[in-house]
Amino acid sequence: MGSSEHDVHEYMKTAEGLARVAGDLVRDAYKKDKAVESKSCAVDLVTETDKKVEEMLISSLHKKYPTHKFIGEETTASGEPCQWTDDPTWIIDPVDGTMNFVHSFPFVGICIGLSIAKELVGGIVYNPIYDEMFHAIKGEGAFCNDQPIRVSGQTDFSQSLLITEVGFNNEEMFEVKMFNYKAVVKAGARGIRSLGSAALNMCHVARGSAELYYEYGIHCWDMAAASVIVREAGGVVLDTTGGPLDIMSRRCVAAASEDLIKVFKDHVKHLTLQRD
Amino acid sequence: MGSSEHDVHEYMKTAEGLARVAGDLVRDAYKKDKAVESKSCAVDLVTETDKKVEEMLISSLHKKYPTHKFIGEETTASGEPCQWTDDPTWIIDPVDGTMNFVHSFPFVGICIGLSIAKELVGGIVYNPIYDEMFHAIKGEGAFCNDQPIRVSGQTDFSQSLLITEVGFNNEEMFEVKMFNYKAVVKAGARGIRSLGSAALNMCHVARGSAELYYEYGIHCWDMAAASVIVREAGGVVLDTTGGPLDIMSRRCVAAASEDLIKVFKDHVKHLTLQRD
Repeated sequence: MGSSEHDVHEYMKTAEGLARVAGDLVRDAYKKDKAVESKSCAVDLVTETDKKVEEMLISSLHKKYPTHKFIGEETTASGEPCQWTDDPTWIIDPVDGTMNFVHSFPFVGICIGLSIAKELVGGIVYNPIYDEMFHAIKGEGAFCNDQPIRVSGQTDFSQSLLITEVGFNNEEMFEVKMFNYKAVVKAGARGIRSLGSAALNMCHVARGSAELYYEYGIHCWDMAAASVIVREAGGVVLDTTGGPLDIMSRRCVAAASEDLIKVFKDHVKHLTLQRD
Repeated sequence: MGSSEHDVHEYMKTAEGLARVAGDLVRDAYKKDKAVESKSCAVDLVTETDKKVEEMLISSLHKKYPTHKFIGEETTASGEPCQWTDDPTWIIDPVDGTMNFVHSFPFVGICIGLSIAKELVGGIVYNPIYDEMFHAIKGEGAFCNDQPIRVSGQTDFSQSLLITEVGFNNEEMFEVKMFNYKAVVKAGARGIRSLGSAALNMCHVARGSAELYYEYGIHCWDMAAASVIVREAGGVVLDTTGGPLDIMSRRCVAAASEDLIKVFKDHVKHLTLQRD
């Protein structure tokens, strides 16, 4: 069953409304005093918020669309592989940027992506702190707060601003990430930014604020929604090797043009990670 | 002549009004289409905006306070050392984050610091894109959009979110910066963010969104205003070695507590740069 038999508009309008409700929950929790003496409480708070928001999103969508399936950060946290079918599937990250949430760093994103027949057809990434609602439907352009957004269109790597993250997962991954960080700067990137949220990093490529974002170690719920937004803004989202994006592969590169990815892929070491 | 003979309130109220006028100029230029075919035009635009904003700020302040002195990014760009005297001195960066400006990455700061008898007594950092006005007067606390802000107060390095920038200046500096980036992560920092504006990075420490910011290669106009804001928010701003801040030394560390700086300073290699 293809997307033509589905009212994707109606689905995404519902999802946008729910993202705003989720935004209120996240904003309230974000603003709670996460004082230094209760750092573990802050971690508990994000876990609690994560669960509460995901449950709200899934139960609301399930009530309205009982045949739809779900892949969510919290529901998939048990370590089992994701079950991604041809059914309409909502791919959800209730709070992308959990470390930002814990530290009150103002980049947290509520991500709701929709796939039909394993094709990504709609995406919402909402930052409730700055009240920025990024959204896109396949074939209809990308928007931030209902204003159209476009990638910069840059094709020259040496004129590009990059975004990535270098957290510490394990020694080997960290060394490769640092190698890549150096490599892209030596390849001529004009600078690197890190906002701490994969989805919002991608949205900054979509809005033309940066030219290329790459990351190893992220999950399908971090990239599903945002990849629709980047593509609809005129950008390209691929596997880090330059092949087709595989959202279960834990890695991706999003760019203002494919030319930039061609330069990028030849300068970095590629990590292969356990699939979602 | 000490600050007691000066109406610092009145000075800073004037400066805040001018920062808002400057904000309109910067926002208008920021929003201009900086299309890919005119990247050099975008660089020209930032240079033009930089000069226009600095001239407006200096001429307005000079008209009102004819005995005050000025240190500005544009007026000092000729490479001569800064002349910093005991006179009331406005230390100005019209657009902190020029690369962000060129790429429409939404972190640009208008910085206005005031020293009297070489003591930093007032600071304004205004991000006109997100309309966030950070301001502080010595002894009176720090504010963002008139709401009081506080550092997180964190004292445990392993619970800290860091901010720094790793641009490419020259091979030696880049290698040391990369060494330091690795070193602070290995010392236990929970993550590193990069917003691309020294002053706004510091304001994120001041508002409790991150615990420690450090950078080598910045200028006095990048740190003067923001250092008042961090200190008035309860934070500590020092030389990267842990000694007293020397705003002409091209380096600083701003943190939620001195404990964090004690850990930081022992893990990094210190760069000595040509003074402002």
